[in-house]
Amino acid sequence: MRIGELSRRTGVPVPTIKYYVREGLLPAGLLTSPNQATYGEAHERRLRLIRALLDVGGLKVAAIGEVLAAVDDPDKSVHKVLGVATDLLVPRYAEGEQDAAPDDAPDAVLEAARERVGELIERRGWRIGDDCPGRKALAVTLATLEGVGHGEFAEVLDAYADAAESLALADLDYVATRKGRDGLVERAVIGTVLGNALISALRHLTHVDRSARLYESGELHRDASAAGAGPGAGAAPE
Amino acid sequence: MRIGELSRRTGVPVPTIKYYVREGLLPAGLLTSPNQATYGEAHERRLRLIRALLDVGGLKVAAIGEVLAAVDDPDKSVHKVLGVATDLLVPRYAEGEQDAAPDDAPDAVLEAARERVGELIERRGWRIGDDCPGRKALAVTLATLEGVGHGEFAEVLDAYADAAESLALADLDYVATRKGRDGLVERAVIGTVLGNALISALRHLTHVDRSARLYESGELHRDASAAGAGPGAGAAPE
Repeated sequence: MRIGELSRRTGVPVPTIKYYVREGLLPAGLLTSPNQATYGEAHERRLRLIRALLDVGGLKVAAIGEVLAAVDDPDKSVHKVLGVATDLLVPRYAEGEQDAAPDDAPDAVLEAARERVGELIERRGWRIGDDCPGRKALAVTLATLEGVGHGEFAEVLDAYADAAESLALADLDYVATRKGRDGLVERAVIGTVLGNALISALRHLTHVDRSARLYESGELHRDASAAGAGPGAGAAPE
Repeated sequence: MRIGELSRRTGVPVPTIKYYVREGLLPAGLLTSPNQATYGEAHERRLRLIRALLDVGGLKVAAIGEVLAAVDDPDKSVHKVLGVATDLLVPRYAEGEQDAAPDDAPDAVLEAARERVGELIERRGWRIGDDCPGRKALAVTLATLEGVGHGEFAEVLDAYADAAESLALADLDYVATRKGRDGLVERAVIGTVLGNALISALRHLTHVDRSARLYESGELHRDASAAGAGPGAGAAPE
């Protein structure tokens, strides 16, 4: 197909497609004449993957280039490729973007959080390298909880780890059914990025549901009694 | 304490603190003389909350203002306040930031995804309003999976919903132990934002672990046989 057709099918403007080709994210089309190129299904699929990483994953163009280079590198082991891909998807705040470090012993807090992460990994028997960015991402989150006076929330850690293991099982069902390494890495990337979006949206829905159950009926009840009304129609039995 | 001390304790620069006061995120300090104000623990706590929402939650200053206004509004019911707070925390891509809409019937795909979300909510018995942004966030994610050729991944939906319910139970243990509505909303916000960061980091760790188990030992084994070596020490029995 021509570039215009590729643009129409994917919703990506022609100049943007050309930019991705220049940046090496997308292979150039096959030249059919000096100023005309043709694109195939592989281009369309790659383009949709780029847009998913960009729009849903929130990755920068440079990071997408790294992921795709790893996917396309036949010398990288599957575990290495999966590592490159998923490491780039770890939340960016793990890199630390603060204006200034608070001076009330944040190093000690972060150090304690790192130790706590190490203990969790050992307790769970997870095989995780010392330099895995997930360690830092988790430690920074725990230290932030401390910093905002909610260190107690970290008590959910093991319940959350249980849930993460269930999610990983479900992901694996999807990822590991693919034999070829390209499809496998693409599935891992999609599963990581869109899986985070899925669980985040589902958490929102369950929170709204729980809030409605806990606080809505109670408040209808309270409003009804404040007005001296009879049995509140909306007040569910507790 | 003076503003300099507040800055030192929180790591937030003095001009930034003044900016938050001007934007109404932080109450002004108590004037002790025409050009000197004093700040208390409530200021320190609010400042840490602002930074957590900004640095970890990734919220914009205007959105933080809306959350804090809802927290501080005594006329809003707890369910309403929790709604305002958590609605702002739904992933921003739900608002749609695409350059152009693909023309291959995306409306039909999004419509089908919305129906699927509705069926899930009914199947689960969740109490969710029709205009809850979580519906759209989930539908957009499912439609995106379709768009990138991974619609099949949506088969994890019920396993993910199970995990989301477990997480909500753990969150509730934390949120609902607080009686006052201020602390309760603060806990809900922190739990939503930092809970997403926690589960995202934990998913990363479980993925790395599963990848190591599945692909690393296999590859050590393959490398060992390729080199004609004896029994690979790293090759776990399958």
